[in-house]
Amino acid sequence: MIDRDRRERLLTDEVAASFADAPPRLREVMGSLVRHLHAFAGEVRLTEDEWQRGIDFLTRTGHITTDTRQEFILLSDVLGLSMFTMAVNAPEDVNATEPTVFGPFFVDDAPEIALGGDIALGVKGTPCYVSGTVRTTSGAPIPGARLDIWEADADGFYDVQYEGERRAGRGWLTAAPDGSYRFWSVLPSSYPIPHDGPVGELLDAVHRSPMRPAHLHFRVAASGFTTLVTHIFVAGDPYLTSDAVFGVKDSLVVDATEYPAGRAPDGADRDRPYYRMTFDIALAQEIQP
Amino acid sequence: MIDRDRRERLLTDEVAASFADAPPRLREVMGSLVRHLHAFAGEVRLTEDEWQRGIDFLTRTGHITTDTRQEFILLSDVLGLSMFTMAVNAPEDVNATEPTVFGPFFVDDAPEIALGGDIALGVKGTPCYVSGTVRTTSGAPIPGARLDIWEADADGFYDVQYEGERRAGRGWLTAAPDGSYRFWSVLPSSYPIPHDGPVGELLDAVHRSPMRPAHLHFRVAASGFTTLVTHIFVAGDPYLTSDAVFGVKDSLVVDATEYPAGRAPDGADRDRPYYRMTFDIALAQEIQP
Repeated sequence: MIDRDRRERLLTDEVAASFADAPPRLREVMGSLVRHLHAFAGEVRLTEDEWQRGIDFLTRTGHITTDTRQEFILLSDVLGLSMFTMAVNAPEDVNATEPTVFGPFFVDDAPEIALGGDIALGVKGTPCYVSGTVRTTSGAPIPGARLDIWEADADGFYDVQYEGERRAGRGWLTAAPDGSYRFWSVLPSSYPIPHDGPVGELLDAVHRSPMRPAHLHFRVAASGFTTLVTHIFVAGDPYLTSDAVFGVKDSLVVDATEYPAGRAPDGADRDRPYYRMTFDIALAQEIQP
Repeated sequence: MIDRDRRERLLTDEVAASFADAPPRLREVMGSLVRHLHAFAGEVRLTEDEWQRGIDFLTRTGHITTDTRQEFILLSDVLGLSMFTMAVNAPEDVNATEPTVFGPFFVDDAPEIALGGDIALGVKGTPCYVSGTVRTTSGAPIPGARLDIWEADADGFYDVQYEGERRAGRGWLTAAPDGSYRFWSVLPSSYPIPHDGPVGELLDAVHRSPMRPAHLHFRVAASGFTTLVTHIFVAGDPYLTSDAVFGVKDSLVVDATEYPAGRAPDGADRDRPYYRMTFDIALAQEIQP
């Protein structure tokens, strides 16, 4: 009988070798995945009870996942894998706006909003005017970029977390020919990620907070440029240093300045105070594979 | 702006540090899991499309999983993680019968069968008489061990893979005071693991066969001993060297000898040919934690 270490190594080699006939990229990905999975189980001397709890955890994560609740993305987020994957794929261009996590709350059927329109669509919160310009990393305006914006309401919930099919707190718009964009929304609020499921149990068990600092999601796409997925965070938020999903970058923290009721920057008369945030975006040139 | 490698390392450290306040064992397990997950994504330079396909794969794996179909266990099996976990937890005692994968087809409500009874309960197949003795690793009989047995029918399906609640091809029995056990079953058949779901797609994509060599599942428990989960495999099976779940051990391959109709070893008159397999079991002493 061979010793335990050697038996484990032989097993890992046998499993890795079973991918020998796979297409090259799959062989590489699956081989690496298997070696790291086994190395993890070997390193921590994973017990059978722990393995079973892992199976149960994944099963419950699968069962709570629906078209509008993606618990596996949430799991990837709280393990930092989403942010790590963004880092691996971030443009090399150091002048490009930094990306951050996509999150589980994007939907494909958000309404189109006119430039300068309001994505709030009735959600609760203090109005916030957001504007900026989409440029290349050398500063030239990019005309007509598509911006998808989504955010939680003042109670910290996205539209899809409520009953019904209402779309609100999200929309997409087209930047002007000079690259500028502007829209009304509500001031983002910090909120917990959904923590009534398996991912919440995990955070609880490891004594981590489910809170995310207040942010607005952006996805910015223009032909010839790498699509940017990012957030802007509100300066001063108490959760900036303990984001449950590790999404904060200093360069994405933006001041939200309060203005009294009156004439707003878009010429409209506001009958109550509002906030204003300015966020200029630099897209990296798309690299042709 | 810091370079990519350093940014990735800092992110992994930040995520690992987020488990600092977890109970010690969870901190160890989650820290190791996160480091290996990130190392995997970094090593293969995981693309966002691949990450998304991983999320979709896990989602579909969760959605196909039910009380009677455990696709996550199947996934763990084909990645060799189940077998690796068994190896990590196998008794150090080199004289103990070797364990192998549990598989996804065990159920808690199998019927009790009298010693010498028939677990086939009507499933299709050639009768097979299985007998042996349960002993300690130094050879002393262990009286009254509980043996749970389960197997696929001649078409390669377990009872739970059919419509309805019928329990057949499975049962549990109590070994005699002298440690001996015996039961009738059907000769096991090789079969594909369920491959109409995500795991089947994966095997197909990497050009691996879903076939498992013919086997009978055993779980053997006795007070004071480590519970053994194993199979016996039928000698000569063409899939012994390419088991989809890496479960084969040489010590578990057993001859199935064919006998003509007539007086069987239990004294019964059999009106058609039958097989016989003999399998002695050695349980390791339970180690008190």
